[in-house]
Amino acid sequence: MRGTAYEGAGRLRTVPVDVEPPGPGELQIAVAYCGLCGTDLHIAHGDMDARVSTPLIFGHEASGTVAAVGAGVTGWAVGDPLTVMPLIWDNSCAACLAGHQHICQNLTFVGIDAAGALQQRWTVPASIAVPLPPGLDLRTAALVEPVAVALHDVRRSGLQPGDHAVVLGGGPIGVLIATVARHAGARVLVGEIDPTRRALIASLGLDVLDPENGLAAEVDRRTAGNGADVVFEVSGAAAAARGATALARVRGTIVIVAIHAAAREIDLQRVFWRELRLLGARVYQRSDFERAITLLDEGVIPARQLISGVVALDDTAGALADLSAGRAMKILVDVAGQENHR
Amino acid sequence: MRGTAYEGAGRLRTVPVDVEPPGPGELQIAVAYCGLCGTDLHIAHGDMDARVSTPLIFGHEASGTVAAVGAGVTGWAVGDPLTVMPLIWDNSCAACLAGHQHICQNLTFVGIDAAGALQQRWTVPASIAVPLPPGLDLRTAALVEPVAVALHDVRRSGLQPGDHAVVLGGGPIGVLIATVARHAGARVLVGEIDPTRRALIASLGLDVLDPENGLAAEVDRRTAGNGADVVFEVSGAAAAARGATALARVRGTIVIVAIHAAAREIDLQRVFWRELRLLGARVYQRSDFERAITLLDEGVIPARQLISGVVALDDTAGALADLSAGRAMKILVDVAGQENHR
Repeated sequence: MRGTAYEGAGRLRTVPVDVEPPGPGELQIAVAYCGLCGTDLHIAHGDMDARVSTPLIFGHEASGTVAAVGAGVTGWAVGDPLTVMPLIWDNSCAACLAGHQHICQNLTFVGIDAAGALQQRWTVPASIAVPLPPGLDLRTAALVEPVAVALHDVRRSGLQPGDHAVVLGGGPIGVLIATVARHAGARVLVGEIDPTRRALIASLGLDVLDPENGLAAEVDRRTAGNGADVVFEVSGAAAAARGATALARVRGTIVIVAIHAAAREIDLQRVFWRELRLLGARVYQRSDFERAITLLDEGVIPARQLISGVVALDDTAGALADLSAGRAMKILVDVAGQENHR
Repeated sequence: MRGTAYEGAGRLRTVPVDVEPPGPGELQIAVAYCGLCGTDLHIAHGDMDARVSTPLIFGHEASGTVAAVGAGVTGWAVGDPLTVMPLIWDNSCAACLAGHQHICQNLTFVGIDAAGALQQRWTVPASIAVPLPPGLDLRTAALVEPVAVALHDVRRSGLQPGDHAVVLGGGPIGVLIATVARHAGARVLVGEIDPTRRALIASLGLDVLDPENGLAAEVDRRTAGNGADVVFEVSGAAAAARGATALARVRGTIVIVAIHAAAREIDLQRVFWRELRLLGARVYQRSDFERAITLLDEGVIPARQLISGVVALDDTAGALADLSAGRAMKILVDVAGQENHR
């Protein structure tokens, strides 16, 4: 069996993986697909060297089937389709005790802090495995994790049907937020600087504009000058963080979804004057994961259009380079090696 | 009759005031006291010249009695003690229609956008007059408006009994927020850079520290390293805005109370990582005003200690200079001229 490991200093390598039986309470997964995301890019670029232990088999957007069931695990049989919610919390910190396990202060993020899904046999605690419905194809199911992120962001925003929502940043998470918000009954406008991405977003039936060219005026036009109910900041750009407050209505909400590497200038005068609300939102709760599966199963998420490509395990580095260059939306790694790739 | 007017270009002058009977729907007030606040300072310094029409009789923290009742006004008699909630909303903008009249997009703030309380006869719409209980002395009642601000800030924060609260900035509003939060059952710590103010705050039985010296460590000590439930940013300082996110627990709340003249650097990474909530809070709703009267009447607010001095109408400029130099907490103007001043 094989896997793709980050070996430190910006190096990736496909390596042999020893397969041992799962321990008590564990499931061993035959991984089918693993999506790549911005965090994987950060790992591969060496930006997270202070956090990760190398060699690290990364990847956390997985689909697959049960390959072996550990002692004491009930409710699972070999061959069952599944995905993994890659969070392990300590159940004892103040965040956990307050019911916010997903932002546990000692969270183990599987695929960053522990071995991830870019390997043909992946063993995880059965508690973090989530069953998939039989009809859901495993390519589509590799999108469960990012869809759960989007659902969590929208749920945290308090978005109501009929609300005007603006999504700043039209990468995979931004598009998923827009899709989920639209499905929740919101009127959605996406701001994205890249024309290729704008074309894809428009092809999904979403309204999209260049944030530097007409977005604010269009928000004004749509809302009679009042501003949007919810603004999702998904771009990570300083200008977007700075401008987000200007787009929100009185008592409107701005959700900080992106990772901002540096402190950003925020117009606190506007926050005060309009009694705005800025909310951080990170990962997801189990209910988001289960709802993501339902939305994918119902065909609400345009999975096929969002998957720019599927590559072999050996091509993980190339796929990350494509993502880094903005040449792709979502790329899946065919971990099982079932498909023919160019 | 006399009043104190801002004449533009940073000039104040005590001027004669013509007294005409109140119109239909109006009350004429014999103003007793009017407190001075930061906004009055901004007006007097010329910082708000773009907004105000001069000459402007300013002042909006008033107490007094009814001097005359206009046609059609019911429920009021000459001599009734009262204060004024100095907000007039348009009842038609999106904020008003959503029930947030206090942050109406076309709000008239009486004392800024219309003639205020620094005059011996002040005529206002009866709808914004609020009755005072007979036993409440009119000096104390001049604090209703800033206490209502504090109540609104605390209410908006969602503070719960037992919560740890940090108040950054120990001026009048900061001390009132601390007092109201303590009364609501919170464990409160105030950060204030000025040692004279720290001494006063400590004398009120409130815990207070220099924000640059030991505040963060004390928050950690009190909360077992978890952080405060609510942080009120009342200082207006860039460093406080920058540091506030570091003091809040996972899912904690930061309330932006101060006016920040420039955009401020905010640690959005922390906002994201801990799923923090930043809320703007401005002025008050009618229920805050009524509750403020109750708290003052019950003696919950240390009104006597907070009032640094009472000056004659002619000394308004001197009082503002004292406030500006940080030599005072709350100064009242004896508008009626009933007291002997040095």
